[in-house]
Amino acid sequence: MEVEFHRWLREHVPAHPSLPLGLGDDAAVWSGVRPEIVITTDLLSDGVDFRLPCDDLRLIGRKSLAVNLSDLAAMAAVPTGAVVSIALPRAGVGPHSPLDTAIMLYEGLLSLTAEFGIMIAGGDTNTQDGPLVISVTAFGLVTERGPLTRRGGRVGDKLLVTGSLGGSIFGHHFDFTPRVREALLLHERYDLHAGMDISDGLTLDLSRLASECDCGALVYTSDVPIAKAAKHLPDALQHALGDGEDFELLLAVSPEVAIAILRDQPLACSITCIGELTNENGLWQQTSDGTRTPLEIRGWLH
Amino acid sequence: MEVEFHRWLREHVPAHPSLPLGLGDDAAVWSGVRPEIVITTDLLSDGVDFRLPCDDLRLIGRKSLAVNLSDLAAMAAVPTGAVVSIALPRAGVGPHSPLDTAIMLYEGLLSLTAEFGIMIAGGDTNTQDGPLVISVTAFGLVTERGPLTRRGGRVGDKLLVTGSLGGSIFGHHFDFTPRVREALLLHERYDLHAGMDISDGLTLDLSRLASECDCGALVYTSDVPIAKAAKHLPDALQHALGDGEDFELLLAVSPEVAIAILRDQPLACSITCIGELTNENGLWQQTSDGTRTPLEIRGWLH
Repeated sequence: MEVEFHRWLREHVPAHPSLPLGLGDDAAVWSGVRPEIVITTDLLSDGVDFRLPCDDLRLIGRKSLAVNLSDLAAMAAVPTGAVVSIALPRAGVGPHSPLDTAIMLYEGLLSLTAEFGIMIAGGDTNTQDGPLVISVTAFGLVTERGPLTRRGGRVGDKLLVTGSLGGSIFGHHFDFTPRVREALLLHERYDLHAGMDISDGLTLDLSRLASECDCGALVYTSDVPIAKAAKHLPDALQHALGDGEDFELLLAVSPEVAIAILRDQPLACSITCIGELTNENGLWQQTSDGTRTPLEIRGWLH
Repeated sequence: MEVEFHRWLREHVPAHPSLPLGLGDDAAVWSGVRPEIVITTDLLSDGVDFRLPCDDLRLIGRKSLAVNLSDLAAMAAVPTGAVVSIALPRAGVGPHSPLDTAIMLYEGLLSLTAEFGIMIAGGDTNTQDGPLVISVTAFGLVTERGPLTRRGGRVGDKLLVTGSLGGSIFGHHFDFTPRVREALLLHERYDLHAGMDISDGLTLDLSRLASECDCGALVYTSDVPIAKAAKHLPDALQHALGDGEDFELLLAVSPEVAIAILRDQPLACSITCIGELTNENGLWQQTSDGTRTPLEIRGWLH
């Protein structure tokens, strides 16, 4: 229902002069204060984003904030704070009481606030007859370079990704470090045309970026960096193209900037060119022998 | 578990220089931008804050934002925007699909954004195997008068409440209009020492206000304004003292300011003096014949 609901939202939620980007980017930019702030929210629930009692409560708490920080990274904003709302199962989780459950979630969360120097600005914690649900809203500051958005990519721009993709379900979706530092460094040093984080799958997210740029996109499939966790799976490339929850950065930059970034390799992680924006709409793939065929869009629609 | 969890939070969530009030007021004040902003979040779930399929989805959507606006009113902040996260039951609600459920929730919500001129800045909507959960984070701007906080009340201050209290469960908890305009008008025209909204019950919330002011409080029980919905119930006064979800303002002002406000009656709703802050800790009640006895704290602990 995600696609239909977003269409309804775009038609019915009024535009606002203080909300220059409107809905549809990784986060909202609010221009009513100085510096401008970026706001994003994600809701995680048991059975969808994690599975209890198997998954570790501290990792779940950490993830609830990390996915939001990844959205702030996608906008190249400096993370500043978060509010945290939790609906706790009345019976607790496994051997843990509701109180212990809440504390363990917070312990995971606070490990990340400490790492990024951000504040918990409030929250709401209730018990209910239902599965665990955590909703985090994070906010950050736009830098002097302005926000990095999904728009602004041009035909011929090169597509770069940080790190490697695929197989996140085997653990990376819990232990990833949001690419906040990487996004801020790249945004400061280089002219980035457009960017987002890869949360729902490379092809699905790339189709969104390309669409916002009024372009199509061509993926050099043999250049897509495949994560260790996916490398030995059958159809490893398909995992890299569609698994999602990679929380890596996807960027569009001019060919000259791409050359500079690839030469400098300025990040602690790798950064790879995986394709380009095209004037042919839709997604395309090019294999190492130069053949171009349509690329199926796969990913995680909520 | 609310009390224990808040104690844990106060001990474990680090203070932050940009968060002058810390945790514990109706909302957080973030001083990292100009003007300063106020942030608050509330999570509503089926079976706790509303009951499906009996309750109207549009009223539930409206309430999810209204309770947050009441928190902004409690800080005398100008509401500006909100983000909305919804966990939808996979089977929908009654005859309504998940998509229709989400739309009806939003229709209620948008009626209130239109009334207060605020923007929806984003959201996250998922389906899950569990009851409906809505989490709204709202933000607003601090006025030139600064935020209205729970601190600052002094011994001898008079306690004022807007409107009337009790019996909210019979409908008012869905159709109340958050006291935003009232709070802004009073905060601009008069010197308010402390304030909050009454969400968990007059006595419980008053005990919190008094505690933040390092005072006790005396309630003139015969002066407590009882809402129509509670007037004909047995123990009507007890409903007014403890039902909660009234979403009225509770203010502490000097005796001189109380006289001015009560004389001016500057609001479209009534405003009534119901007691005073005392140097005796705890809550006390005084009946019309002048007898003082301890007042039991009742209310809604989540």
